[in-house]
Amino acid sequence: LYAFSVHNFSVGVLGGSGYAGRELCALIERHPALSLSFATAQSQRGESIRVGGRSVTFVAPGDADLASASLVFSALPHGHSLPWVERARSAGAKVVDLSSDLRPGRGPLAGTAAGDVPYGLPEFHRDAIAGASVVANPGCYATAVLLALVPLASRGLIAPGATVSVSAASGVTGAGHTPRPDLLFAEVESDFRAYAVGNCHRHLPEMRATLAFAGADCDLLFTPHLLPVARGILATITVPLTAPLADPVALFADAYAGEPFVEVADTPPSLREVTRRNVARLFATAVEGMRQPTLLVQAAIDNLVKGAAGQAVQNANLMLGLDEAMGLPT
Amino acid sequence: LYAFSVHNFSVGVLGGSGYAGRELCALIERHPALSLSFATAQSQRGESIRVGGRSVTFVAPGDADLASASLVFSALPHGHSLPWVERARSAGAKVVDLSSDLRPGRGPLAGTAAGDVPYGLPEFHRDAIAGASVVANPGCYATAVLLALVPLASRGLIAPGATVSVSAASGVTGAGHTPRPDLLFAEVESDFRAYAVGNCHRHLPEMRATLAFAGADCDLLFTPHLLPVARGILATITVPLTAPLADPVALFADAYAGEPFVEVADTPPSLREVTRRNVARLFATAVEGMRQPTLLVQAAIDNLVKGAAGQAVQNANLMLGLDEAMGLPT
Amino acid sequence: LYAFSVHNFSVGVLGGSGYAGRELCALIERHPALSLSFATAQSQRGESIRVGGRSVTFVAPGDADLASASLVFSALPHGHSLPWVERARSAGAKVVDLSSDLRPGRGPLAGTAAGDVPYGLPEFHRDAIAGASVVANPGCYATAVLLALVPLASRGLIAPGATVSVSAASGVTGAGHTPRPDLLFAEVESDFRAYAVGNCHRHLPEMRATLAFAGADCDLLFTPHLLPVARGILATITVPLTAPLADPVALFADAYAGEPFVEVADTPPSLREVTRRNVARLFATAVEGMRQPTLLVQAAIDNLVKGAAGQAVQNANLMLGLDEAMGLPT
Amino acid sequence: LYAFSVHNFSVGVLGGSGYAGRELCALIERHPALSLSFATAQSQRGESIRVGGRSVTFVAPGDADLASASLVFSALPHGHSLPWVERARSAGAKVVDLSSDLRPGRGPLAGTAAGDVPYGLPEFHRDAIAGASVVANPGCYATAVLLALVPLASRGLIAPGATVSVSAASGVTGAGHTPRPDLLFAEVESDFRAYAVGNCHRHLPEMRATLAFAGADCDLLFTPHLLPVARGILATITVPLTAPLADPVALFADAYAGEPFVEVADTPPSLREVTRRNVARLFATAVEGMRQPTLLVQAAIDNLVKGAAGQAVQNANLMLGLDEAMGLPT
Repeated sequence: LYAFSVHNFSVGVLGGSGYAGRELCALIERHPALSLSFATAQSQRGESIRVGGRSVTFVAPGDADLASASLVFSALPHGHSLPWVERARSAGAKVVDLSSDLRPGRGPLAGTAAGDVPYGLPEFHRDAIAGASVVANPGCYATAVLLALVPLASRGLIAPGATVSVSAASGVTGAGHTPRPDLLFAEVESDFRAYAVGNCHRHLPEMRATLAFAGADCDLLFTPHLLPVARGILATITVPLTAPLADPVALFADAYAGEPFVEVADTPPSLREVTRRNVARLFATAVEGMRQPTLLVQAAIDNLVKGAAGQAVQNANLMLGLDEAMGLPT
Repeated sequence: LYAFSVHNFSVGVLGGSGYAGRELCALIERHPALSLSFATAQSQRGESIRVGGRSVTFVAPGDADLASASLVFSALPHGHSLPWVERARSAGAKVVDLSSDLRPGRGPLAGTAAGDVPYGLPEFHRDAIAGASVVANPGCYATAVLLALVPLASRGLIAPGATVSVSAASGVTGAGHTPRPDLLFAEVESDFRAYAVGNCHRHLPEMRATLAFAGADCDLLFTPHLLPVARGILATITVPLTAPLADPVALFADAYAGEPFVEVADTPPSLREVTRRNVARLFATAVEGMRQPTLLVQAAIDNLVKGAAGQAVQNANLMLGLDEAMGLPT
Repeated sequence: LYAFSVHNFSVGVLGGSGYAGRELCALIERHPALSLSFATAQSQRGESIRVGGRSVTFVAPGDADLASASLVFSALPHGHSLPWVERARSAGAKVVDLSSDLRPGRGPLAGTAAGDVPYGLPEFHRDAIAGASVVANPGCYATAVLLALVPLASRGLIAPGATVSVSAASGVTGAGHTPRPDLLFAEVESDFRAYAVGNCHRHLPEMRATLAFAGADCDLLFTPHLLPVARGILATITVPLTAPLADPVALFADAYAGEPFVEVADTPPSLREVTRRNVARLFATAVEGMRQPTLLVQAAIDNLVKGAAGQAVQNANLMLGLDEAMGLPT
Repeated sequence: LYAFSVHNFSVGVLGGSGYAGRELCALIERHPALSLSFATAQSQRGESIRVGGRSVTFVAPGDADLASASLVFSALPHGHSLPWVERARSAGAKVVDLSSDLRPGRGPLAGTAAGDVPYGLPEFHRDAIAGASVVANPGCYATAVLLALVPLASRGLIAPGATVSVSAASGVTGAGHTPRPDLLFAEVESDFRAYAVGNCHRHLPEMRATLAFAGADCDLLFTPHLLPVARGILATITVPLTAPLADPVALFADAYAGEPFVEVADTPPSLREVTRRNVARLFATAVEGMRQPTLLVQAAIDNLVKGAAGQAVQNANLMLGLDEAMGLPT
């Protein structure tokens, strides 16, 4: 086995101490063409974590040498990322922003041209991403839901005016690494509950905007739940159709033919099949006994990989002219 | 503290070795007016389990003295219970049947008058249960879903012809105690998946029949999931309404006023709030941003208590003329 | 069933918002002769929790009416409890102190007569506890270890000068309710690790002092571990003996004959057998193939019940002249 | 990145359907110089599993083309492996046997020259393994315990005649993939218990024989426990020393300098640090307050990787003249 590694791009991570930030550091560490220039963390500056074989020491955000990086990943909290995106751009770095600050559906952003920032779902916007200097990495739930729904929307299969109902469940890393009493082990184990009920979740705008752009005229109802697992999202979606679908699995297989990071299955996906992998696993089946033709669609992803850090690297690969799949676990 | 216990009714358990059967034995053991006459188990006959303070030894079904019991609980597998229900009836015992054999919606049963067997949801059929000699104890999922939907159906609030979509998740005791590779700890932990997708679950007929009887003209879409927890069911339900509801929590609070085993909450229920208790915990909220007025309703129960053994004892209390709440954990 | 409840003692809880404090509130709520006068919490003052059927609202420590209580439980942090013990005593209340501040082995305490404060293991110090105004409730690990070792120590069975090695594991509620990154669900699940290695744990002094008092001349080596479970402690102990023991289970059964809260088993105990119960479950067996006769002893308890709140109520029952077992789950 | 993979050795797996067998298939799939010729499974013959990117279909043992393989891994059950080892040898294949059938300490084996079969701990027997045609892969517990103890034994540091006490805990994959009621999720979660107490575990003979060979004259006391996790072993070991050790971590760091698969840490290891990696992580610290100088040593491994399949591939690499670390996850 002979391997010639070419570490030709320095990258930085803003907000490296959260779960997504750590996953980014780990993916960069194993990436053959990226090397980590810096990782920032405000309250944990000076602390080190082990990623892969080596140690990464967090620096304060103000100490990050933005100009040293060809590309910067921002995993800063929602609402705090935009100024750093602009600072990194000024320093000459490309940016993949994992926050929701620049995602579609959030209204005009003062002083930015948000319309020029592609939404980082490579399966739909590959060319725009490849040519962009800033990409808005999608939310974890939005990634799962949109990979399941866009093929139906773009083919005009969703019944106009209908309600598409999404019940989704996520592992607790989706809630972040900041200590909260309700995220303690003894509170989460053996439990299951919904949150952000009644269409209050932050990912709804980007889901609605993307579905509308794909041609759907439907109402989206989204209910997320907290699972007693560390990683993974499963979205279970009911879709009223304009007409019955003869072979829904074949439709998705056709829609994603050749895609390296989308698997179409003929059985319901489980979290185990996708955790620690940069893939979305999709399944669809007709629902029996309904007057309205209805499809059940499911999508499973690892919220930290295809739902965050993995997809961010996938976008970065495109933006840097690398093979889209480079360094990503499948 | 002075307590005069009156153990005046002998009861038996057919199928005592499964999770529901063991829970029944434990509830009978702590019940002040019931005493356990026998518990049967085919393959585990002769084996003992500890329930509460004492040991219970399983006998072969053929060795059970059915005539010694005022009431027999059958926790036998679906499809195997009916002959034993009839045998127990012939011996003079009343019967609470936890299998699906006598539940509504399953079509005419040869040699039985299933129409005369009340469906054991005391909140709706209290009087019929009190006067019955055989009661069909509801399925665990059906209990959660029907307690959430019947008040809406009986008030004519569900939009005619609409789809009511139920996404539900259950702990693994719902899948039984018989060893299967997919139920091993190392397979279930960290996982989450749907099963019986596309409206294939055994509980659909009893749910549909009960909703139709309550006046609803809707299609039901039911997707169950397997949770990495031992106990508990959470059902998340989207209901298209005929008109917006001003105060959905108040509607449920009014519908269940005075009910000892239904709690109406103003926050989404969690499994922890209901496990090891004979209660259903309900929540409802309007969904924002929908053209069709839509309600999100949730119900949480312990699948082994309010979803099985606890509700069976609740029914037995009614059938034996005891206080409905006697011996039940709240 | 007729029950005449006599709620004749008002009690208070200092430090009610932690896991032990909440468990105390729940046990008091279901206790037939105790009623909760107040529960304090500094940072959560004004917040409410649900215990059993009712709601408890925390008051600031300074707002607690200590004089209203016949007895006060202090579940305050180690090092902060002693001043409140003295304040409660001045107000006329008896005190069960769950902190380590007054436990044996900690050296002379300025301004106190620690020697007069019985160590609250009722199985060994029942009479002293019944006559005391202040009792030091044992640590959770110490409870498990001492119930396993004192019968051997007091019978002179532990080889003089030998090393008794304890490997113990506890559920995470033992680490408290204050949020810490290392106690988040995503950090604890799938993990297992030791802590306080090399004999650094806070419970060693009370274990050593009690064993010495019981007549043992041994060195204690104690290694605690953190388990991915919410509740429970299992201590696995190797004891070099002066001579082989013919029937170790019988020895323990004899030592604890008549004790309501100690179970002697002939199989290794598991956490499930003791969680949510105020019992210690013990097991002992000879070790094969050793030159030095050696016993393996195990003790399992629920760290929040027999290891904390349950034992505190057991002590309170004795101090108030009630039946020792009143209100306690077995 | 340019990679020239050389898949030059065909290998087979006997007993591919258990947890160790599946892990072997997965490691072989990602190994750059091994290709899977066959995997057998008796009851699951004809069934397929997904490993890495491709599907593996089990064949009946009698249908395996042993002669097609340069090397055969046997993951057959203890007591059933030896005849297949001999069959594979007759067909010309080298063999790594993961069962206990050929491990040291088990007495003379009829018809075999067990003394000629090296014990597959490469850190101690690298040269013998490289020259062998059959290697006995160590037990999972034995791997952890011996990597912790052999450096002390071989330096004469263990007090003669003393008792070395091992308390170890393993994830449930160590108990195998065959369905058993006590391994169901609902039985294992929230639990912890010991088994094979009193020195009854199958791995004791190989541990004792290897320690004696390394020069130790001690008694070994071994108590395994079942953890509610899928993977990982942590062994906590107390070692009476001939004299105090100034720097135990440095001793281990020196003993394992240059070893690719042993990590010496200065904090207690946790399962998370080793799962899915072919490493043993060691830690040692002096115990305070003891008359006898005593060391606490800990070792953590993934029972399926360094404790089984990973170490088997490590041995196979040596036997086939490949780089010892090839294809192994660190």
